[in-house]
Amino acid sequence: MKKNTLFLRTINKELVDRPPVWLMRQAGRILPEYKAIRAKLTGFKELVKSPELAAEVTLQPVDLLKVDAAILFSDILVIPEAMGLDYEMIEARGPFFPKTIQSKSDIDQLLTGKKAADRLDYVYNTITEINKHLPENIPLIGFAGAPWTILAYMIEGKGSKTFSLAKKFLYAEPEWSHFLLDKITDSTIHYLRNQVKAGVQTLQLFDSWAGLLSMEQFNTFSLPYMQRIKEAIPEVPLTIFAKGAMLQLQEIAEIKPDVIGIDWNISPLRVRQWLGADTVLQGNMDPCLLYATPEHVFEETVKMCREFGRNHIANLGHGVYPDTPLEGVKAFIAAVKSISYLE
Amino acid sequence: MKKNTLFLRTINKELVDRPPVWLMRQAGRILPEYKAIRAKLTGFKELVKSPELAAEVTLQPVDLLKVDAAILFSDILVIPEAMGLDYEMIEARGPFFPKTIQSKSDIDQLLTGKKAADRLDYVYNTITEINKHLPENIPLIGFAGAPWTILAYMIEGKGSKTFSLAKKFLYAEPEWSHFLLDKITDSTIHYLRNQVKAGVQTLQLFDSWAGLLSMEQFNTFSLPYMQRIKEAIPEVPLTIFAKGAMLQLQEIAEIKPDVIGIDWNISPLRVRQWLGADTVLQGNMDPCLLYATPEHVFEETVKMCREFGRNHIANLGHGVYPDTPLEGVKAFIAAVKSISYLE
Repeated sequence: MKKNTLFLRTINKELVDRPPVWLMRQAGRILPEYKAIRAKLTGFKELVKSPELAAEVTLQPVDLLKVDAAILFSDILVIPEAMGLDYEMIEARGPFFPKTIQSKSDIDQLLTGKKAADRLDYVYNTITEINKHLPENIPLIGFAGAPWTILAYMIEGKGSKTFSLAKKFLYAEPEWSHFLLDKITDSTIHYLRNQVKAGVQTLQLFDSWAGLLSMEQFNTFSLPYMQRIKEAIPEVPLTIFAKGAMLQLQEIAEIKPDVIGIDWNISPLRVRQWLGADTVLQGNMDPCLLYATPEHVFEETVKMCREFGRNHIANLGHGVYPDTPLEGVKAFIAAVKSISYLE
Repeated sequence: MKKNTLFLRTINKELVDRPPVWLMRQAGRILPEYKAIRAKLTGFKELVKSPELAAEVTLQPVDLLKVDAAILFSDILVIPEAMGLDYEMIEARGPFFPKTIQSKSDIDQLLTGKKAADRLDYVYNTITEINKHLPENIPLIGFAGAPWTILAYMIEGKGSKTFSLAKKFLYAEPEWSHFLLDKITDSTIHYLRNQVKAGVQTLQLFDSWAGLLSMEQFNTFSLPYMQRIKEAIPEVPLTIFAKGAMLQLQEIAEIKPDVIGIDWNISPLRVRQWLGADTVLQGNMDPCLLYATPEHVFEETVKMCREFGRNHIANLGHGVYPDTPLEGVKAFIAAVKSISYLE
């Protein structure tokens, strides 16, 4: 196991010199080298399912941008697919599930747990492939969608501003909702354990649609399932990123993730006020800042790092947007690397 | 001026028996009587621009649902149109501006202030028409988009999950952003004053895209302009609803709106903890709750009202969704009307 990396030492609260830096969605989207590979393929899913190519695009930002962590190139929707709901990724529109969950019998028919996770060999093979080439000092981050976010897609069948079908399901069928969340959680635990066995050193849960829930719904339908995942996988550190749920940071902290992901809706100072200096936080630059001039990006990034202080992993507050200029990304990374806690 | 209405007495902090109730987007969308009128027209904008028909759909929820306030049937995007940017409302997709703001000279060419507001006679005529028929005990709410939300559409040209073009503009061109916000604010102040002269008794600002901003951006590009509007129109009470900005409720309270709109991302108890029992709050039921059984809707609504306590205007935490069952809406209203503070 790699232990001596800036990223893992930060999570361990060792005395590091500066924050580690990586960007959500760094693998894919922004690099011309990624676009070149993508252009040769029929689509996004072909890339996800090709271990050699997925490994290559995972490694690109490490080589080209010199970030401090690699994140597996994959998709949170491989779990619903492994459970039996195939999906298409439609260019410029997003995911589409021809079949969605409509009834209890739809849920009964899903594959679950080990059976679902074992269908994702291509992911584990990608991890093996990445580790053949990843530098010693760079950890590999594995990930999955948080159960509520996965349920949202399984019910709604596609992206949505409101996910009102999925939320209707929570209100109208709370028991079935829990039944489905339980199956998703079980599959996700097996999936993440397999990722760890294959060679990731840390994990992140993306609760991308946490912000659509009321506080009570988040506490009922999201948080307990993330807690189960956290407790089931004590081997590696876990980051929980519940986008849009910054009002519930204290509740998230109570389930004791190793790192808490912060979106850009809250200022570092406010988060520190709520969670203290000791909590390891990841985030939270507005991805739109990267459209500004490199000088402005640099200045704001330094300010953000100063405000977070120690126990911080520098990142954006959301995935990098596809049309982000590379100079903005580079200025962001350079700014983090200019930080010295010793000064 | 109507003063003796449950709605205005609540804002005045008089001793009322129960919270008043209305629903954002109650005019339009949900009533079959609305759909019947809408079906006869070429589109949404024709309805907005027809004072008699717009008045009729404004009055429908008062007559049919017995809500405690009427809200003008109109659109926040009439302001950019009056300033010189025409838009189309595309069925099932939303607004589209063929021409957007791209440069400083685009901003220079906009009509502003009184000149823009005076182009909106159809709105003022609608207000006159509504007041011919509105019961004595029901106030009429006028409204406008908050300046940041209007800027977002003028730059982006259409709805967007991220409004990344608009946010890029804030980062890349802060001076032009302020220049444009200033013009929008000036136009909005004239527009709202004209609404008051025409006969609305209270106003609401909708900052629908506040949630896309960082705290610093909200404090820089949104809040000061809402404050200017508040201070420019002391004649009638103003509600500020900054959707997605619940982390900044305290900052919103500092500019002293008469009512603060609350979205469903925060619990009534948490808001009361932050803002005290004395602030008049409006909200905040999740619109998706209305998909549940009427019994469940009733129960949850009573709970919400109890948690807010006095100084509360019952509403949803967002506009009612188009496919909401009427039974859910009715159960929501009945539940609020069942409340008695005297018990």
